[in-house]
Amino acid sequence: MSSNFGKNIKIQIFGQSHSEGIGVVIDGLPANEPIDLERVSAFLQRRAPGKTSYSTHRSEADAPKILSGLVDGKTCGAPLCAIIGNTDTKSGDYANLKDIPRPSHADYPASVKYFGANDIRGGGHFSGRLTAPLCFAGAVCLQILERNSVFIGAHIATIGKVKDTLFDPVNLTASELLSPSKKGFPVLNEAVGNLMITEIEAARMNLDSIGGTVECAILNVPVGIGDPMFDGLENNLAKAIFGIPAIKGIEFGAGFSSSELHGSENNDSFFYDENGKVRTKTNNCGGIMGGISNGMPIVFRVAVKPTPSISKEQDSISLIKGENAKLTIVGRHDPCIVPRAVPVIEAVAAAVILDMML
Amino acid sequence: MSSNFGKNIKIQIFGQSHSEGIGVVIDGLPANEPIDLERVSAFLQRRAPGKTSYSTHRSEADAPKILSGLVDGKTCGAPLCAIIGNTDTKSGDYANLKDIPRPSHADYPASVKYFGANDIRGGGHFSGRLTAPLCFAGAVCLQILERNSVFIGAHIATIGKVKDTLFDPVNLTASELLSPSKKGFPVLNEAVGNLMITEIEAARMNLDSIGGTVECAILNVPVGIGDPMFDGLENNLAKAIFGIPAIKGIEFGAGFSSSELHGSENNDSFFYDENGKVRTKTNNCGGIMGGISNGMPIVFRVAVKPTPSISKEQDSISLIKGENAKLTIVGRHDPCIVPRAVPVIEAVAAAVILDMML
Amino acid sequence: MSSNFGKNIKIQIFGQSHSEGIGVVIDGLPANEPIDLERVSAFLQRRAPGKTSYSTHRSEADAPKILSGLVDGKTCGAPLCAIIGNTDTKSGDYANLKDIPRPSHADYPASVKYFGANDIRGGGHFSGRLTAPLCFAGAVCLQILERNSVFIGAHIATIGKVKDTLFDPVNLTASELLSPSKKGFPVLNEAVGNLMITEIEAARMNLDSIGGTVECAILNVPVGIGDPMFDGLENNLAKAIFGIPAIKGIEFGAGFSSSELHGSENNDSFFYDENGKVRTKTNNCGGIMGGISNGMPIVFRVAVKPTPSISKEQDSISLIKGENAKLTIVGRHDPCIVPRAVPVIEAVAAAVILDMML
Amino acid sequence: MSSNFGKNIKIQIFGQSHSEGIGVVIDGLPANEPIDLERVSAFLQRRAPGKTSYSTHRSEADAPKILSGLVDGKTCGAPLCAIIGNTDTKSGDYANLKDIPRPSHADYPASVKYFGANDIRGGGHFSGRLTAPLCFAGAVCLQILERNSVFIGAHIATIGKVKDTLFDPVNLTASELLSPSKKGFPVLNEAVGNLMITEIEAARMNLDSIGGTVECAILNVPVGIGDPMFDGLENNLAKAIFGIPAIKGIEFGAGFSSSELHGSENNDSFFYDENGKVRTKTNNCGGIMGGISNGMPIVFRVAVKPTPSISKEQDSISLIKGENAKLTIVGRHDPCIVPRAVPVIEAVAAAVILDMML
Repeated sequence: MSSNFGKNIKIQIFGQSHSEGIGVVIDGLPANEPIDLERVSAFLQRRAPGKTSYSTHRSEADAPKILSGLVDGKTCGAPLCAIIGNTDTKSGDYANLKDIPRPSHADYPASVKYFGANDIRGGGHFSGRLTAPLCFAGAVCLQILERNSVFIGAHIATIGKVKDTLFDPVNLTASELLSPSKKGFPVLNEAVGNLMITEIEAARMNLDSIGGTVECAILNVPVGIGDPMFDGLENNLAKAIFGIPAIKGIEFGAGFSSSELHGSENNDSFFYDENGKVRTKTNNCGGIMGGISNGMPIVFRVAVKPTPSISKEQDSISLIKGENAKLTIVGRHDPCIVPRAVPVIEAVAAAVILDMML
Repeated sequence: MSSNFGKNIKIQIFGQSHSEGIGVVIDGLPANEPIDLERVSAFLQRRAPGKTSYSTHRSEADAPKILSGLVDGKTCGAPLCAIIGNTDTKSGDYANLKDIPRPSHADYPASVKYFGANDIRGGGHFSGRLTAPLCFAGAVCLQILERNSVFIGAHIATIGKVKDTLFDPVNLTASELLSPSKKGFPVLNEAVGNLMITEIEAARMNLDSIGGTVECAILNVPVGIGDPMFDGLENNLAKAIFGIPAIKGIEFGAGFSSSELHGSENNDSFFYDENGKVRTKTNNCGGIMGGISNGMPIVFRVAVKPTPSISKEQDSISLIKGENAKLTIVGRHDPCIVPRAVPVIEAVAAAVILDMML
Repeated sequence: MSSNFGKNIKIQIFGQSHSEGIGVVIDGLPANEPIDLERVSAFLQRRAPGKTSYSTHRSEADAPKILSGLVDGKTCGAPLCAIIGNTDTKSGDYANLKDIPRPSHADYPASVKYFGANDIRGGGHFSGRLTAPLCFAGAVCLQILERNSVFIGAHIATIGKVKDTLFDPVNLTASELLSPSKKGFPVLNEAVGNLMITEIEAARMNLDSIGGTVECAILNVPVGIGDPMFDGLENNLAKAIFGIPAIKGIEFGAGFSSSELHGSENNDSFFYDENGKVRTKTNNCGGIMGGISNGMPIVFRVAVKPTPSISKEQDSISLIKGENAKLTIVGRHDPCIVPRAVPVIEAVAAAVILDMML
Repeated sequence: MSSNFGKNIKIQIFGQSHSEGIGVVIDGLPANEPIDLERVSAFLQRRAPGKTSYSTHRSEADAPKILSGLVDGKTCGAPLCAIIGNTDTKSGDYANLKDIPRPSHADYPASVKYFGANDIRGGGHFSGRLTAPLCFAGAVCLQILERNSVFIGAHIATIGKVKDTLFDPVNLTASELLSPSKKGFPVLNEAVGNLMITEIEAARMNLDSIGGTVECAILNVPVGIGDPMFDGLENNLAKAIFGIPAIKGIEFGAGFSSSELHGSENNDSFFYDENGKVRTKTNNCGGIMGGISNGMPIVFRVAVKPTPSISKEQDSISLIKGENAKLTIVGRHDPCIVPRAVPVIEAVAAAVILDMML
């Protein structure tokens, strides 16, 4: 396994859904940076389960315990390790999964890869629960970035076919960027948000789940961050973002839409604004040219598949009997993972951007 | 810069559009593998410019010269270096670009990042020309993969709004997979291909360019390749694919479409086929679960933006004068880069997959 | 900071001498490997402080707690995290070190590097205490290696000018190799060992410390492990071994002695032994040719400087007053770190060798 | 293979002794740095063969050809690739080496590792000839370092048992540091140098070879370069230096001698000098504490084994016949590689230090 990423800041995630604990080691943080742990906890609460009807009822305090790396509230240069206990685990629910792999989960390839020794309880290391320490890491990085005027925000762009308005990629302000994070349901347009909640509720009532997309933007990254070819912003953001379970696509700027455009429509013309700053009139490139930031907002969207754990009976196989089998998943799961994915995406983006700015 | 990728096989690209030469070093190839250089050259020809009305008229032999790593036609364990000369360079065309950055090219952020010392001629290191050595590397990897029954193929999925049929993600055969690569214009449906060519021609006549998408599939990757979280197939494919100029999005399996589905629609049910092999009835996950191959075809699609170099006059700025300016790009450029991107995407996928299978 | 190493197995160390806890994450261990935690604890006891007059009197249970990565006593493929609490910390002892850096410790450069925010208590992240989680990682790797008949052992080669006999680099047996590890004082020749203890006691009585060297050997590494130039056995062993505090030199095989020899003396002639196995008559290369194992025992020696913490008054500076100052270090410290370094060196070697054999 | 190193600056070496060419790609150099290629060539001449009776008579122009990365004499941010042709190759000399491996060369383990496909001609990729592109890379880095007042120099410390004086590790000046590099035979004390030459000549007349040691020092590295544990100066210097063929040991500061000392003798006391700069009275730590530079000269010594290629008949084996065999090596080889290793060691140190300072 390789549950780590980063070059200057190395983030190592560990834990399984039902192991003694989960956590993260962050190696390479700049020293002497004050970290407000209450704000970190508040950030983690945005991801935490058990708060609404549309998320899993598993209830975890998710209070991180700092083992190292902070002295008197400031980073001391040593690796920062935070652990989160697993308390509300109901391993009994998952007993038959060792035999019958859940569709669209990692159970089957993992059992082949790890000779059947993988921890199947709650999805083991593949569980969405592992995004809690990821959020911890991101929340720490966000504070350091904010001190350098770099802001990161995300919102639900779609649930099923219900669409929120999108960020204005040219004139996005920090205030608009961060507004969804202040709401219980992170959207720009609250009326649309209510439609989305209705959609999720309908899926849940139907013993089903539903997917969506998340849009994320980053403000004030200086011009020149990122390296060409394989070490650019798109490369590193994509590599890290696909580490979040259920992500199946990513696009920057106009992304897949740009494939339908002509160059004269898609090209982002430069101009000097009233302050003499170089800007572009449109931002179809999502703030990234040749892998390198151009000073405009960095914008990307990701596709989140519907939660694969659904309560409906499904077709699968019995690995032990070597024959086809039926599976009904019990246990707790989110009918829609998208709302909880929002802070996770912000967190991963924060870790990548801070790493690349060092 | 960091124009290299790979863990077991490290691929280092070098060169600029108008430098003395461009090339690649491939470090870590398995030893004792015969490499058919004629097949490598044939692969490179699929990417080569100057062949049709819809590609740049720059004419390069693109005949790679092997400096090291092959002895008697076989890999010897030492790094394989191939260089390609730059002969048909017309640097005079690009003189004013140092002053007026081309919209949606890397010129502007590169000039900031490299203190104005970046090689602007022909796009320098950011040029699509750098995909030639990438194709060399991929062609070598493809031969080793094929010897292990792993096949990789791609085709143009869309040009503008014209859509080719897609690969059958469940029952794809090697023969169907490789059929586009045998055509002058790499599509599955040739009638659609003709419409696409018409679309490209129209853009060219209009001094414009057009974008598109490419679909790529990989057959016979064994179950269990890839690691969870940040070192899975999606992570590594995405990171490398975004190294190709003009790529602005990537999706695996149903990708962004899956975000509109319910779990009961999107989940891929398992079954034992007549040979006792584990398969899935659908393949919305694109052959990847939790970052790990599940034995089904690996399928992904990428968005290619329209070539930013167009002949129409555009708005830009004069960095020297510090004021807005007009720009008309002369020189040669493809009205649509998508057809030539097809082998490049196959090449990058080959390098990533071989690296991950070692 | 970058307190991690390894390519296939990534070992991330965290903690400070007086932080809440210290520990290690091991990412990439082969799955389905039984780990005997009692044997791991026994290994850790060889490094543990507080057992003899010649080691620090700090007393730590050093009982590792497993947070993740083991299920039913076997590796499950997920990162293995073990933490060790810091309980017997006396931070008050170290109050004035923030002002007056200890000679030959990292205090001064760390205070510059980390803007004074580094954790000075007990040496912080630079403390020898961080070798406890390193031993944990090594003890796990050793069990997997032993299952593949690879054995690693070390002994004190010298204390000051007192010399133990050396391993026979040509005919070394597993039994001889592992014999020092079974003794309270890890030497081959116990009479010499007693002289060494006398030497250490003398240093301690004199409020001083003393250095030494450790010899380590590795048996049964297959021919062909290691890559040429920068990824060979010497490169990776050296890089990791210098991660142990107080190591100031490393030599492989005849090492520095070989610099005094002629080629005809130093060259290791090949022969077929009675079993048809290729061996060498001498082993001045320490089992490594061109960075690659040749099947003979791998042998290296490291120089361990005398513990820099001594009770004698020393000259230093006051960073606050900006003037020269006197320093008397109170607190607990080993008069000789060499005996406790022996298992640490075995541990690091085990991690490197297992990583390179995967 | 993994013939590359570095984090911010990645140096990739390629080529075999008798391949079409050898070379290097340097990825990540700072942009806009003027590189004086005549000085680079002069540096390469210090390593070049064929100049004296005590080096191989192989004669190579070793004139590097720049393929990319320099524009108008300045680094442009793109990877710098330089190639050197192999012209004076006499591959016929080495025909029987495929059967009979040379003692203390990589022939045998390489033939096992690479399934017999390794390039045996002239040692292939394991040849000392590969240090030519390494010197190229180092010469480029040295110019950038010098512009930042960081100076690197080395000299022959011993040949056999003949010893040069050592650098003064406390008061070393740039002028003393660089003086050996200006001499035909790089020593501090020329009278000792003559004795060394006599020693080498005697070895050559006796169809033998002889080893030695090299001392290297680095001036003006700022305080705070290097990270603790596994990414410190010692770790990275050692890892890279062991990439030079024939190196079998490395020690920093007092190194192995410090193992014989008491703490009170070995500790480096701090004091403020007349300019208010923090310095140490002695420099037994070689300018490195806890892996981090402390502002004093960085000093290390390496052991170079005697050239394994000697003209005397040696015992070996016939891999084809599976029996013991005699071997007489014909072809050209240095009776002592130490003088030519001096600039190589400077070059590698330069690459590591520049990488770590970025």
